[in-house]
Amino acid sequence: MAKDKRQVDAITARDVDFAQWYTDVCKKAQLIDYTSTKGMFILRPYGYAIWENIQHILDGEFKKTGHENVSMPLLIPESLLQKEKDHVVGFAPECAWVTHGGSELLEERLCIRPTSETVFCDHWSNIVHSWRDLPMKYNQWCSVLRWEKTSRPFLRHREFLWQEGHTIHATAEEAIVETEDQLECYASFCENVLAMPVLRGKKTDKEKFAGAESTYTIECMMHDRKALQGGTSHYFGQGFAEAFEIFFTDKENKQVAPHETSWGMSTRIIGGVIMTHGDDNGLVLPPRIAPIQVVVIPVAMHKEGVLDAADALRVRLADAGFRSKMDGSDNSPGWKYAEYEMKGVPLRIEIGPKDMEKEQCVIARRDTGEKTVVALSDLEATVATMLDDVHNNMYAMALKNREDNTFPINSVAEAKEIASGKGGFLSSKWCGELACELAMKEEAGVTSRCMPLEQSGTEGVCPVCGKPCKTDIFWGVAY
Amino acid sequence: MAKDKRQVDAITARDVDFAQWYTDVCKKAQLIDYTSTKGMFILRPYGYAIWENIQHILDGEFKKTGHENVSMPLLIPESLLQKEKDHVVGFAPECAWVTHGGSELLEERLCIRPTSETVFCDHWSNIVHSWRDLPMKYNQWCSVLRWEKTSRPFLRHREFLWQEGHTIHATAEEAIVETEDQLECYASFCENVLAMPVLRGKKTDKEKFAGAESTYTIECMMHDRKALQGGTSHYFGQGFAEAFEIFFTDKENKQVAPHETSWGMSTRIIGGVIMTHGDDNGLVLPPRIAPIQVVVIPVAMHKEGVLDAADALRVRLADAGFRSKMDGSDNSPGWKYAEYEMKGVPLRIEIGPKDMEKEQCVIARRDTGEKTVVALSDLEATVATMLDDVHNNMYAMALKNREDNTFPINSVAEAKEIASGKGGFLSSKWCGELACELAMKEEAGVTSRCMPLEQSGTEGVCPVCGKPCKTDIFWGVAY
Repeated sequence: MAKDKRQVDAITARDVDFAQWYTDVCKKAQLIDYTSTKGMFILRPYGYAIWENIQHILDGEFKKTGHENVSMPLLIPESLLQKEKDHVVGFAPECAWVTHGGSELLEERLCIRPTSETVFCDHWSNIVHSWRDLPMKYNQWCSVLRWEKTSRPFLRHREFLWQEGHTIHATAEEAIVETEDQLECYASFCENVLAMPVLRGKKTDKEKFAGAESTYTIECMMHDRKALQGGTSHYFGQGFAEAFEIFFTDKENKQVAPHETSWGMSTRIIGGVIMTHGDDNGLVLPPRIAPIQVVVIPVAMHKEGVLDAADALRVRLADAGFRSKMDGSDNSPGWKYAEYEMKGVPLRIEIGPKDMEKEQCVIARRDTGEKTVVALSDLEATVATMLDDVHNNMYAMALKNREDNTFPINSVAEAKEIASGKGGFLSSKWCGELACELAMKEEAGVTSRCMPLEQSGTEGVCPVCGKPCKTDIFWGVAY
Repeated sequence: MAKDKRQVDAITARDVDFAQWYTDVCKKAQLIDYTSTKGMFILRPYGYAIWENIQHILDGEFKKTGHENVSMPLLIPESLLQKEKDHVVGFAPECAWVTHGGSELLEERLCIRPTSETVFCDHWSNIVHSWRDLPMKYNQWCSVLRWEKTSRPFLRHREFLWQEGHTIHATAEEAIVETEDQLECYASFCENVLAMPVLRGKKTDKEKFAGAESTYTIECMMHDRKALQGGTSHYFGQGFAEAFEIFFTDKENKQVAPHETSWGMSTRIIGGVIMTHGDDNGLVLPPRIAPIQVVVIPVAMHKEGVLDAADALRVRLADAGFRSKMDGSDNSPGWKYAEYEMKGVPLRIEIGPKDMEKEQCVIARRDTGEKTVVALSDLEATVATMLDDVHNNMYAMALKNREDNTFPINSVAEAKEIASGKGGFLSSKWCGELACELAMKEEAGVTSRCMPLEQSGTEGVCPVCGKPCKTDIFWGVAY
């Protein structure tokens, strides 16, 4: 008996209710499930497999540039969290606190790490002595916890999986290069792997990380024209080092505080992938992270030889290095088409008795729906090309969405009109004053997204105070 | 200026004080560091790299047999932990409790997972409906927390990294096969990857996991003749399913409770690797998980061409798929030899001007100290063979240690004499009575390690009560 087809049908249309569409996709594509622990989610096998592919690629990039993985403790004593003053102000309100171990009340309560700057610094204060020890370039794959009031799959979990890079350097120059290099690592990962165009920029002081001198960000536009921060990279200067009394002997034999950075990307980016590429049929996954890149569906599979022929294609594809699956279950081909469309599988291959006779198969693209008849002898080469085409088309469509929905604005009124209407990224100049940034939030309902790294250098005026200024900035409504 | 050679010298002799030797190795080989959070450790890059290699191999084995990775929540509501009565009795005393989120007192306190049976069951109670949904074979890589009174690197951390497999099946037969298959997966991993011989067996009722019907174990003998439990695999029957009200419709359309298993291996096994193979010069790492399999040391490296020649060897080895490193730092060759011996690198290649002239190098084995002159043209083939030889010799030495130190005993007095003397594994029959097991503990100071899966089938008598019985059992002092 075939499974109930309604399972894959019951999804809200994307343009009717984007938020509901998003939640439907997360559930129906079996990416996540809710749990009995409020605000925490399960990453189900299909959702976790996407994260594993992200991890695998990012981890390789980090290692290529000399970063080493470590494991730091989950719990941080309250006194350690308090050492850097801006940092504790930013994070303490979001901490979950352990007060009892077994039946004992603890002398000092411990927070579950919301981020690990303090434990890295504590470690470095023990092991960094000389300029010869520097730099240390560490990374950790783990989960962190922030006591959020509301939650949404991938976008806002009380517990979420991420990687946090932490590095320590002898000079400011070197640390700043690291901060920028890691931002570029994230940016090119989004573009070349996730097919997501990004704006590379710096955060304003108001929006930067608690304890950072500067925060770099990549900002992505979702299909509903809202912004998602895809990853951040922070330069800390010597602030943390001084607070944690990390000093090293430099080449001139002087005691100096080193310079630090940190940078992170989390499972939130999976939410970004869904909201950038998904459609009314469900997920649309970028081929380079899709757990299944090609699914083979036998048509009229009870006819002699069809299942074997379908499986032979799967084997050929697997041998050629593609992540592939053959679905020989007793569901109908139509049910299977809908199922793997919901799951965002980039390419579907259909093969039946007539195809076998003609030594061909049909390949359907998830992104465009286009179907192509392909000679079996060309299978691997065609799949390789088509996966690249899918990637490129997905990137182009996302870029078009951003370009079509980025608007220069000259006044708060203009900003408000767009933000309260169709939405999008608003580009303007900014005088640098916090008051003007706050006014944009209060009056137009947008926050600063970033000051792009590539500045135009032209003169203009601040849309709030009208003062002449040069800094380019983007505003938007963010997840 | 060369680093101080004393750094690598200051380690306690293994046979003088095994416990201190162990701690020295963990610190000096830079595997771990202590933290400001009592009972928690940092896995430093070299220690974490060992864990990554273990993960990579085990994860591949799990996936080959159809297991899928997931991510479950870190925190478990107290009411959920209490659903299975034996389980909560076993784990509640070791839980760390979160009582506050931000500044709010929680209505129900949450424990940091000591293990995740309860959250897997909670999830399954939502998603398992029909026999078509079964089996589900899941695994999770994460850290868990148990509020231990004392701690030792790798062997006993309040927080430790592990994998926990959790599976759910339609029948008891299928679940028992899974339990046994996963034990065999651990056993062959220990033997073929870690060069650690293991005893495969079942735990007595006293020693089994809280909530399990039966617990299977692999038991390893350390160099000091104590036992280490290397991994366990549990069959739960329907106990958890019933407690969590997981029912499915079987092929006859009846509502039935499924059968479950879980199985885990942790960073503790790294402690086992150290204590099985290490010696007075430090770590001795099994080649298949060594982060560096071959280190190339240039001799007289300031002579023309030496550094280049050494690096060329590293490149050749890397191209052939070996994890290799060339140390071109300004430390002396002697310092480097000691350093990589401390780190347990299986093979060291020395190359200097004379070797270059003769188109040869010298390869030194970490396990035996043996040096061999090798023609450069034979490099890759020789390294491949030697790495296998190192593995095989390490396994053989560990097996000899176990065989030389396993003693049949016929009475409690005999057991006590050996246990309080040289130590080792004691083999005997056992009548199956808890009273006799407790007497062995109280009077001879040993606990039951396992009833081997391969039973001899012979008759004998229980060393405590003298009753005739057939069951073979091993006793020992365990970490």
